[in-house]
Amino acid sequence: MTVPLSEPIRLAVDCMGGDHGPSVTLPACRAFLEKHPGAELLLVGQPEALTAAAGWSRCRVVPASEVVTMDDPIDVALRRKRDSSMRVAIQQLKAGRDGEPVQAHACVSAGNTGALMAVAKVLLKTLEGIDRPAIAAVVPNATGRFTTVLDLGANVDSSAQNLLQFAVMGSALVAAVEGIEEPSVGLLNIGEEAIKGSEVIKQAGELLRAAGSAGHLNFFGNVEGNDIYKGTTDLVVCDGFVGNVMLKTSEGLATMMGNFIKEEFGRNLLTKLLAVLALPVLKAFKHRVDHRRFNGAALLGLRGLVFKSHGAADAVAFENALARAYDAARNRLLDRVHDRIVATLQAQASDAGDNATPAVAQAA
Amino acid sequence: MTVPLSEPIRLAVDCMGGDHGPSVTLPACRAFLEKHPGAELLLVGQPEALTAAAGWSRCRVVPASEVVTMDDPIDVALRRKRDSSMRVAIQQLKAGRDGEPVQAHACVSAGNTGALMAVAKVLLKTLEGIDRPAIAAVVPNATGRFTTVLDLGANVDSSAQNLLQFAVMGSALVAAVEGIEEPSVGLLNIGEEAIKGSEVIKQAGELLRAAGSAGHLNFFGNVEGNDIYKGTTDLVVCDGFVGNVMLKTSEGLATMMGNFIKEEFGRNLLTKLLAVLALPVLKAFKHRVDHRRFNGAALLGLRGLVFKSHGAADAVAFENALARAYDAARNRLLDRVHDRIVATLQAQASDAGDNATPAVAQAA
Repeated sequence: MTVPLSEPIRLAVDCMGGDHGPSVTLPACRAFLEKHPGAELLLVGQPEALTAAAGWSRCRVVPASEVVTMDDPIDVALRRKRDSSMRVAIQQLKAGRDGEPVQAHACVSAGNTGALMAVAKVLLKTLEGIDRPAIAAVVPNATGRFTTVLDLGANVDSSAQNLLQFAVMGSALVAAVEGIEEPSVGLLNIGEEAIKGSEVIKQAGELLRAAGSAGHLNFFGNVEGNDIYKGTTDLVVCDGFVGNVMLKTSEGLATMMGNFIKEEFGRNLLTKLLAVLALPVLKAFKHRVDHRRFNGAALLGLRGLVFKSHGAADAVAFENALARAYDAARNRLLDRVHDRIVATLQAQASDAGDNATPAVAQAA
Repeated sequence: MTVPLSEPIRLAVDCMGGDHGPSVTLPACRAFLEKHPGAELLLVGQPEALTAAAGWSRCRVVPASEVVTMDDPIDVALRRKRDSSMRVAIQQLKAGRDGEPVQAHACVSAGNTGALMAVAKVLLKTLEGIDRPAIAAVVPNATGRFTTVLDLGANVDSSAQNLLQFAVMGSALVAAVEGIEEPSVGLLNIGEEAIKGSEVIKQAGELLRAAGSAGHLNFFGNVEGNDIYKGTTDLVVCDGFVGNVMLKTSEGLATMMGNFIKEEFGRNLLTKLLAVLALPVLKAFKHRVDHRRFNGAALLGLRGLVFKSHGAADAVAFENALARAYDAARNRLLDRVHDRIVATLQAQASDAGDNATPAVAQAA
């Protein structure tokens, strides 16, 4: 799906998803449209909940009668609520695939992650050569830039081949969204030495080193947990279980530290006065670690661009998720993932001589 | 190894280990002795490096001619440096085991983790019923108390049975050191629901629930990464790979946030003045997240009490590791681990009827 430069980028927005629904998504859409004159939005949801958007330009309401709640089991989202805003929003990506006119170039939802991934997988299918889609997000690092981390919970018990695919897809994402053409890739491990870690991690290290030597990846080597926030590499690859724990632990720690600062500055009249004086400093600090700035995780490996906003996102955070999806579509993330996967797997296949696996042959 | 109340607690200290050796360990030992009139220390290391301690009361130098460096491979620590301060310090725990007079009740080293665990395993052996020793540490949480987490890197690819053993040993540790007799136990997972996670985690959940129902554990259920710093449970159990990543990520994030605060307060003359005014507030905050306060990880599951200090520890941090080892010995951690393991495994064995496994029968 190449987007000609003249064509506007169109996003399908699940306006009903997340903890807050339209009260957050609509103001975010409005702010996003003002800042992105080249963008159009399909506002998906119950029309009576979206009346506030009546008359907005570059916008169209796409009706969907049902809503997937944050607690709905995957099964309900997949089989029962067939006219949910989440499902209809993803469906907007399908039309463009087989020569029909494109409805939307990317889709954004703050709905529940498990349901979103499941519906997206069923409707869009995975890209050829990809075994399992993954979820990628960014966190700030000490260099003032960002570290992209995947997988963050879509896969548990990832194989070495899965981890290689995460590295390839993640490289395409960083190239498209951060503009770093050959991002450095670290393999998350419990030590820097190649001999450390589980068997799967050691095998993944070998696959990544081979892909690096062949010029398909900029493989740095093993990294440890602290390297994520040091910014040692642009991209960190890990199993979904580990990534999920890592991200949620970070959320918990950052919240705790933020609350400790608040408590200490709120202790008495004098400290409260100091807090007022230091407000610009405290705000500047808060801005640097504000997770809303990094909102918008990419679901990678699907035949369509789906971005997931945090369920508790406010309008600022949801707008950032829209902006990330927009950048990804404008910079042809889907093509980039496809091209990189094909190149890497072709190389693997030719290394293996005539013994190319069916998956590889298919993708090549 | 029950310590009669009248007998002083004696710690064997690897004075040469860590990044700084005696320049950190000796001042820490001195400060520790001043605050613990019921303690005695065996200072293990090269006598010429420990002359500063000559004349200290309740202290004795135990000579060891070699030093395991932070980069020494496990093999060197195990087979080549047979007179290392690390090895000799651990050996002080052995004598007491078979009726001989006790040399030391616990051992503390800031030496490299892999070497320390390997030497301790070979010299002390694991407790009956324990497949793999684990490393447990504490982190601060939002309630103002601590969360104990294990395993932190000794084991990768832990089985469900390993995770149960970690829970039992960790409960004994929290009871002994934090004084919480039936600490709540959380199983680290990627969702609260019992159906989430890998197969191993689901099986571990079943074992933990069964041990909880039988009254051997205070099992809370699944917890997620953010619960560690929320303080949802007193104890969090996880695979060593996940725990290692979690802890190092936390270190990285806390360092980054600390540096961001410093940078913002250091931006110009005005902000620097504010920092001076706010110094007591900033210090109070720093104290609450000061990792030195939580230094001293327990190696659990061995037939002797070994505590590991962070390699980069300063004197304040190393003194805290000594204090934790002292508390553990005074509160009979080794007996507690043994008793809990026996009780839990006996119950498992009787559940399994006559089909008790050899390991279980042995421990019972």
